[in-house]
Amino acid sequence: MIEIEKVNLQSKLNTFDAYWTPKIVGELNKQHVKLAKFKGEFVMHEHKHEDELFFVICGELFIELQEKTLHLSPGEFVVIPKGVPHKPYAPEEVSVMLFEPATTLNTGNTESDLTVTELDKI
Amino acid sequence: MIEIEKVNLQSKLNTFDAYWTPKIVGELNKQHVKLAKFKGEFVMHEHKHEDELFFVICGELFIELQEKTLHLSPGEFVVIPKGVPHKPYAPEEVSVMLFEPATTLNTGNTESDLTVTELDKI
Repeated sequence: MIEIEKVNLQSKLNTFDAYWTPKIVGELNKQHVKLAKFKGEFVMHEHKHEDELFFVICGELFIELQEKTLHLSPGEFVVIPKGVPHKPYAPEEVSVMLFEPATTLNTGNTESDLTVTELDKI
Repeated sequence: MIEIEKVNLQSKLNTFDAYWTPKIVGELNKQHVKLAKFKGEFVMHEHKHEDELFFVICGELFIELQEKTLHLSPGEFVVIPKGVPHKPYAPEEVSVMLFEPATTLNTGNTESDLTVTELDKI
């Protein structure tokens, strides 16, 4: 019997501080729901096979694309289609919820010291 | 060239009033992001093949399961695995975001006058 429990985003966010290290908080249909905190600049990267959704919970998120830069505030999301280079950055701390296939690597095609291959489930 | 635009949940919610009629606001990896407003009682139903995520934006959502009832407030979500009977209800209006496969029918295995087969994209 699967135990079905609700997830409170803020309670989960309170359990970690590290930036750029997504944590898995839900799984469905081979997709993961992740929470992450960002501050500073990430690397420009793309995901060859996965579309990726960024939803802002708290703070301001910028996503640099080739043609423009998106600015997301709390209660806003964007879907970055596979194959589209993007670079998230946040002058101040931002908390985000991600929705993407379980196969998604945070740095996509650009492995670096920011790459996280083993994600915690919290 | 795909136009990549952010989605503001509240702006989308302001465009409709009808209860129990999910609207598609995003697509990724053959999944849909939907917004809906609920008030009153839905039907007990299950989805044979699809896990379903309910995220509360505004208001209070109850989901009756066979063994217990979940109570979700803003900033909380739950994943209802496929095959699990569930009945959403809301004494007062609640706004929710849904993540689920594009194939998902709102009433699952229980077609009724609440069933919506053609979903609007807003």
